[in-house]
Amino acid sequence: MPTPRTKVRRHPERGNYERETINAILDEALICHVGFVHEEQPYVIPTIHARDGDLLYLHGAPGSRMLRDLGRGIDVCITATLVDGLVLARSVYHHSLNYRSAVVLGRAHKVTDEPAKLHAMECVVEHIVAGRWADARRPAPSELKATTILAVPLDEASAKVRTGPPLDADEDLALPVWAGVIPLELLPSDPIADNGEPLPAYAADYGRPRG
Amino acid sequence: MPTPRTKVRRHPERGNYERETINAILDEALICHVGFVHEEQPYVIPTIHARDGDLLYLHGAPGSRMLRDLGRGIDVCITATLVDGLVLARSVYHHSLNYRSAVVLGRAHKVTDEPAKLHAMECVVEHIVAGRWADARRPAPSELKATTILAVPLDEASAKVRTGPPLDADEDLALPVWAGVIPLELLPSDPIADNGEPLPAYAADYGRPRG
Repeated sequence: MPTPRTKVRRHPERGNYERETINAILDEALICHVGFVHEEQPYVIPTIHARDGDLLYLHGAPGSRMLRDLGRGIDVCITATLVDGLVLARSVYHHSLNYRSAVVLGRAHKVTDEPAKLHAMECVVEHIVAGRWADARRPAPSELKATTILAVPLDEASAKVRTGPPLDADEDLALPVWAGVIPLELLPSDPIADNGEPLPAYAADYGRPRG
Repeated sequence: MPTPRTKVRRHPERGNYERETINAILDEALICHVGFVHEEQPYVIPTIHARDGDLLYLHGAPGSRMLRDLGRGIDVCITATLVDGLVLARSVYHHSLNYRSAVVLGRAHKVTDEPAKLHAMECVVEHIVAGRWADARRPAPSELKATTILAVPLDEASAKVRTGPPLDADEDLALPVWAGVIPLELLPSDPIADNGEPLPAYAADYGRPRG
């Protein structure tokens, strides 16, 4: 259910409050943008996230100003956006973008328990490249100590989704202007090896999970 | 030059304050994330932008809460991020992302002059698909009226860039774990036509400008 703060007002038909939809966007998006206020100035910082059930993890260095601020429990907005295509209408006015975005409002808490931190780091690695945790060297205690993990509950969130063709006004439909959608996707190209070890399947055939 | 608010503190070697670098990121990024405060809550909203020299344009419906708030001249942070690749290190701890991000701090003003609004709309359309303005039906006076245009000066901005291979600790270099980079790029697939008009070259061979 939307709250007054997460209700989609512009294009309400694009609003979606289903956890399944929100989860799929958060899971497919590699990164999110974190908004917070520091000395009355809003900041928006891109970072990697990972969803674990009803929690969203953020991580980074203990010296990070963003993580230090967020760890104090200030209000935060976390937004993940997937660009799915360009919508070219006959009229400039009806040009649009196909996209899926999820907006999460809440407050973060620090994850301090060591096994919980290790689990969160596994979630982050697996969010980026499913299968990687089994192969890479696990964090040493000193590395675990040098990583801050925050968790934000997914209590207040909404999604906004536009799909489909351009929606021109009837009187423009016969205009001799190509109209349609150019689909877009974040796609991998050939991996660039840093050593001679065999290339794992998750790197050779990399792709984002689709909801 | 960085200001105390835009100086990159984490990984200062990734910080870049050259306008050329910042411009290239803003120009290549299709969308940005706009951060602002409404009733003490930060919000982060994805939207299309366009750079015009030393100005960054945002646009949308006059009813948009974000544009109404921003049009009053409140503090805003606009961040554009390009994800260039996944950096798979031998150790979990040194996994990273290759990316380029630009952060702009400032205050917006409304563009109200009609020719200036039309010019801003041209910038926005050309930012998304260079060449499209010449083909699509131009905005009617009523459509111009139904569009809010804001401009944010690019006075206070910084970029942060990571490139290159994983940087593992020396003692991990011999680990039998594939390491390297999986390059990523937002790429088009075949356009989906909404009418039978000839497909223009800018849609057939769509690509983002590379700085």
